[in-house]
Amino acid sequence: MIERIHTSDVEPDADEVAIAGHVHEIRDLGGLVFLIVRDREGLIQIVFKEEREPELFEAVQDVGAEDVVRVVGEPLESDQAPGGVEIAPTEYEVIDEADSPLPLEISKDIEVDLSTRLDNRALDLRKPETLAVFTLRSELITAMEEWFDEEGYVDIKTPLISKGGAEGGAELFPILYYNQDAFLSQSPQLYKQMLMASGYEAVYETGTAFRAEDFATSRHVSEIAMFDVELAYIDDHDDVMDVQEESLRYALREVAENAERELDLLDVDLDVPEEDFPRITFDEALDILETEYGHFPDDPTDLDTKGEKLLGEHFEEQGHPAFFVVGYPDEKFYYMQDVPGDEIASRKFDLIYKGQELSSGGQREHDVERM
Amino acid sequence: MIERIHTSDVEPDADEVAIAGHVHEIRDLGGLVFLIVRDREGLIQIVFKEEREPELFEAVQDVGAEDVVRVVGEPLESDQAPGGVEIAPTEYEVIDEADSPLPLEISKDIEVDLSTRLDNRALDLRKPETLAVFTLRSELITAMEEWFDEEGYVDIKTPLISKGGAEGGAELFPILYYNQDAFLSQSPQLYKQMLMASGYEAVYETGTAFRAEDFATSRHVSEIAMFDVELAYIDDHDDVMDVQEESLRYALREVAENAERELDLLDVDLDVPEEDFPRITFDEALDILETEYGHFPDDPTDLDTKGEKLLGEHFEEQGHPAFFVVGYPDEKFYYMQDVPGDEIASRKFDLIYKGQELSSGGQREHDVERM
Repeated sequence: MIERIHTSDVEPDADEVAIAGHVHEIRDLGGLVFLIVRDREGLIQIVFKEEREPELFEAVQDVGAEDVVRVVGEPLESDQAPGGVEIAPTEYEVIDEADSPLPLEISKDIEVDLSTRLDNRALDLRKPETLAVFTLRSELITAMEEWFDEEGYVDIKTPLISKGGAEGGAELFPILYYNQDAFLSQSPQLYKQMLMASGYEAVYETGTAFRAEDFATSRHVSEIAMFDVELAYIDDHDDVMDVQEESLRYALREVAENAERELDLLDVDLDVPEEDFPRITFDEALDILETEYGHFPDDPTDLDTKGEKLLGEHFEEQGHPAFFVVGYPDEKFYYMQDVPGDEIASRKFDLIYKGQELSSGGQREHDVERM
Repeated sequence: MIERIHTSDVEPDADEVAIAGHVHEIRDLGGLVFLIVRDREGLIQIVFKEEREPELFEAVQDVGAEDVVRVVGEPLESDQAPGGVEIAPTEYEVIDEADSPLPLEISKDIEVDLSTRLDNRALDLRKPETLAVFTLRSELITAMEEWFDEEGYVDIKTPLISKGGAEGGAELFPILYYNQDAFLSQSPQLYKQMLMASGYEAVYETGTAFRAEDFATSRHVSEIAMFDVELAYIDDHDDVMDVQEESLRYALREVAENAERELDLLDVDLDVPEEDFPRITFDEALDILETEYGHFPDDPTDLDTKGEKLLGEHFEEQGHPAFFVVGYPDEKFYYMQDVPGDEIASRKFDLIYKGQELSSGGQREHDVERM
């Protein structure tokens, strides 16, 4: 059996190819049926001509939207077809039939209410734009892990069932663990620090964290996928910022290169920050907000969502999609090292990309006396 | 400041180097102190001579086991030193001091009871043999993900809080989710199948699964790290076995190449199965157990631990550390496709490596009528 290839790999005027996927669209023009077939990599047009292949033409009369089909045929150049190539079929097989009518349309941009989408999530996920989100996420994780693997970090998986919280008390999901009380892990922070004390030197985890917060905004999610890093033998927090800067630049470059089609589909202009990321102090950040935008965060010890957005605009205008804010007040971040000679600032920072906090970091205090 | 390198990268007669790590051993021979320093990559000997560097010699008198030190110096060839190289120091700094006495020894093979080890887990984790386990695991995950990334699989992360079980009922951990009952995820299976129905074609997850089983044996763990794969558009279960065989061969090769030191430390002879893995039917497996070992599993529809071990011996003697058992009875695995023309066998298989079930797979039934 001829091996199946993806639609994006079909070249015009190549030898016979086999493709398989869902029937995205059917256009019946009398003696001519156009089938648009969709696989993970895109769309391709199959042209069934009554004169040219009467038996296949007969068979394709029964096809329905979202049926799964396998087609073998000859690729031909075509100006009208998506991707500039269409297939003249020599074999046609229905692998599985879809229900008809469908509870929601995949190919057309018809507004569907959220409950219908969630009730039919397996269909909803077929939208190329939705698949693109998953593909982009996959490319991003792969690229991040690649960078840290290359730099010699140990890939760890920390326990998710825990005896207590790593950060605070109120936001834990309780769980019954063989008749004992336990909680879902809020953060791998303490495990990571134990591994530093154990001499593992540099570790990362692509893990899950759980927060039982009221989810009033899109910034609060009960179950979070987190990319988490810890490293020892640093001089100060600038070393950590270097790691964040270099890994992010690498990952964005890789995504831009490997997922061009998906970025186009979602109309995303991925801005890879090639220049050094500006590193400003918390005080400088407040100053920019006050003088340029007349904005004062409600909590004077932290930036608010609006403040981050405005700072994002400020730095994007200067050609910097990403920047660091360093030295948040240490009363809030007692576990971070102080900045020597500064009574207020800690070595905690945020990385802001396009006006959104993308990650946080800092140099933790390792001396229990000083803490 | 001269950049720190790892002990394993110190070459004899090279230029001045900087290393940092824990003090593994101290040997005081009068006018001579040998310090063995341990970092993630191994051990290195630093020789302090009273005559040669009196000030550093004076300073090193106070050193304690497991102190964290930084040393700059000249690497010299030495037959007696571990790795054939020692360092003549020019700078010596104590970064952090360890408590004394230590609750457990790191450098010596002294039997310590489990509760002391767990009470001092951060110290216990410092043992090079323990670190080696984490490093090997990291290399294995990285290699597996590499293979699947290269083959175009989408890296997914499925939800861990679920409304019910994917496989059975009794083994779930209950959790309180905003005043609603929920459970910890038992398996990503249903999510993976939804993604197949959604046209994602090939996905993998390095994830966690939870099983509230009685943990009477080492085969039962409450929180499991699983590498999970799903692919569509296969001909039959042989395609799945091909994927398992090729990815495992690749991953073992990579681990053998990248973690030679760790394998040596743990005295593991990693057997990379280069030849095709034998694929035998469940009936053939029972036959070998009966005729060669006189062994009959208690449950005639499944293999037991002893049976897997004996089959492992049988195939290792023939030069095959890994093999598949195919066609487990379908009454137990109703969700697997039947083998055509066989009233009993399903398309479920196990992969056994060195007498242990390493993974399971099969071709699932996608036709709700047939199931």
